[in-house]
Amino acid sequence: MKSITVLGAGMIGSAIAGDLSRDYNVSVADFDADKLQNISGRYKVEIIAADLLNVDNLNNVIAGADIVVGAMPGFMGFSILRSVINAGKNIVDISFFNENPFLLDQLAKEKNVTAVVDCGVAPGLSNMAVGYHYHLMKVYEFICLVGGLPLIRSMPFQYKAPFSPVDVIEEYTRPARIVENGNIIIKPALSESELIEIDNVGTLEAFNSDGLRTLTETLNIPYMKEKTLRYPGHAAQMQLLKECGFFSRDEIEVKGIKISPMEVTARLLFPLWKYNKGEKDFTYMRMDVKGKAKDKVVHHRYSLFDVCDQSSEISSMARTTAYTCCAVVNLVLNNDFNQIGICPPEYVGGEEKCFKKVLNYLEERNVKVEHEVLSGKESRQEK
Amino acid sequence: MKSITVLGAGMIGSAIAGDLSRDYNVSVADFDADKLQNISGRYKVEIIAADLLNVDNLNNVIAGADIVVGAMPGFMGFSILRSVINAGKNIVDISFFNENPFLLDQLAKEKNVTAVVDCGVAPGLSNMAVGYHYHLMKVYEFICLVGGLPLIRSMPFQYKAPFSPVDVIEEYTRPARIVENGNIIIKPALSESELIEIDNVGTLEAFNSDGLRTLTETLNIPYMKEKTLRYPGHAAQMQLLKECGFFSRDEIEVKGIKISPMEVTARLLFPLWKYNKGEKDFTYMRMDVKGKAKDKVVHHRYSLFDVCDQSSEISSMARTTAYTCCAVVNLVLNNDFNQIGICPPEYVGGEEKCFKKVLNYLEERNVKVEHEVLSGKESRQEK
Repeated sequence: MKSITVLGAGMIGSAIAGDLSRDYNVSVADFDADKLQNISGRYKVEIIAADLLNVDNLNNVIAGADIVVGAMPGFMGFSILRSVINAGKNIVDISFFNENPFLLDQLAKEKNVTAVVDCGVAPGLSNMAVGYHYHLMKVYEFICLVGGLPLIRSMPFQYKAPFSPVDVIEEYTRPARIVENGNIIIKPALSESELIEIDNVGTLEAFNSDGLRTLTETLNIPYMKEKTLRYPGHAAQMQLLKECGFFSRDEIEVKGIKISPMEVTARLLFPLWKYNKGEKDFTYMRMDVKGKAKDKVVHHRYSLFDVCDQSSEISSMARTTAYTCCAVVNLVLNNDFNQIGICPPEYVGGEEKCFKKVLNYLEERNVKVEHEVLSGKESRQEK
Repeated sequence: MKSITVLGAGMIGSAIAGDLSRDYNVSVADFDADKLQNISGRYKVEIIAADLLNVDNLNNVIAGADIVVGAMPGFMGFSILRSVINAGKNIVDISFFNENPFLLDQLAKEKNVTAVVDCGVAPGLSNMAVGYHYHLMKVYEFICLVGGLPLIRSMPFQYKAPFSPVDVIEEYTRPARIVENGNIIIKPALSESELIEIDNVGTLEAFNSDGLRTLTETLNIPYMKEKTLRYPGHAAQMQLLKECGFFSRDEIEVKGIKISPMEVTARLLFPLWKYNKGEKDFTYMRMDVKGKAKDKVVHHRYSLFDVCDQSSEISSMARTTAYTCCAVVNLVLNNDFNQIGICPPEYVGGEEKCFKKVLNYLEERNVKVEHEVLSGKESRQEK
């Protein structure tokens, strides 16, 4: 039986470990012994408490692995990815890091490593969908709307963080790259908030976030954007905190003490953003891919609406992110996907067989992705 | 010529000093030498740099005064008021302190001192209006709406602080006392936000704040409330910061450092709330006093709409607050008002001659208070 090491025992890492443990020998490594204990009580996995930023520790932890899964908070993601590649191990990574992954492409090729990055739901599944159609038609527009939200709304935030809250704030502060008329345009995160009506969900607001990431480099599509979905009002709240400086990491002096406002904000906000036990979340994603095939305009729409799995206490965000990641882990282990180097998910989706297998893998776990072809009249009306 | 000492050289204190310096020998004391320099450049006043929380300093500063004006931030107000009374000096005070001023009533009577407290625009002028009518009819309802706002609205706050920003936050955190059916009800500050249409101003929002203060004890009126006015949306913003704990003075530990979130918030927010040079403000106050006189329902409405004095660079909040205070300083100096003990402004307004002189004093300075009698049909429609 093949062996997998999952780095990170957080909300998503634990769901990945649980899913993969059905078919593989899985070990999970994290600095946090409590999180590890919690996982080992739920799944048949080996647990390893270790500081993974220490390269020797990391090398020990992954030594026996056939493949590694990276599920660390964004700020540690890039450094750990580099170490894993350096160790010559294949990796599927979901961390939302700031650095450009292609900086490691040459290293990965030298080490003959397959490193799939950004491999969650969005970025992740969204990239696969557009990557899939990119090879079948001349795509001129890609729009992705995505959000993970609590089913029950409570003031003031009507929001809970379904993954590392530090990475949520990253989404609210990192400038968003949009593609307009073939040019990369930088817009502020949280900008261009608009209301969107979604069947069975109601009105949500959508604002710019930096979700395109590698797509701006890998696919030549003149119009692309990703927007994050929240209940209406959230963007203004976050904008307020951001404009006041509460998200700033620059230290300020308060009564002679130097402190970063973000540290104080994290201390106050993150407990309020934590899902309570049994509190239900959902994930909604809509991907619109428009293009021309045989001189006809075709509009493909993928819609994902997923509610948490009450029985196994896995959140919807964990389900959709983890199972997408696990599907790709299987593709790499089974040699279905074997490109060498840094591989963003659009490379995976670009291989028809791989995209179909990912969708099947999700469907087996009851994560349903609806596909519609909207063309002709409907499509023109929408424009 | 009589001598007056003004304690506090802030936005309001300086306007008080300037106004009184036309007719009296005025000295101004403050800890902040820069503020004092600024005042001495504008008005013919003596300046004294001193830490007024030190009782010996304070006694020296007020030794030669015929009357003292207290214009300190709320958190220092009560302690300084006590010291001035202890020194046997009459005082007119505008500080928005938390303590019950009647705790000093016995001391003031022993010292034969007239101490008029809360003597600004609201509390202040508002108390005078209701105090005036209280002796002329059976008042059953008093509602005061009041706010000081920038004429030009800029996001995110659409707000600037026209007096000590620490005291603005006090208004947003101190529980509000309301009188309903003769009972004092405590409601959270910022609660019961409602939209109000005001002629020539537009739509503002009104929310509960603790503005009744002494009125809850001194007047037997079954329904009384004060609400603060802001541009719509402000209450929700403040509520957000409050609920997250950004206004809390309880220390939290951040990376081993103990810090009060309020200190961090003050550091970030207060620079954003500072009026720029030349930035115009206005004050709006509406006081509705309803009662029965000779078995007829009578509804008196006082409306004050005042815009800053561009020529002399005095803000509207400073004009309305300072000139009300100065009017009462004149009443006390001229023996028009000579009640001994702690005297809230409703005692001043309760003397017809005093109320009229205050309105005249304001009118001479172009602060116009419009008085309407709405009765019969209009009044009933409104209910």
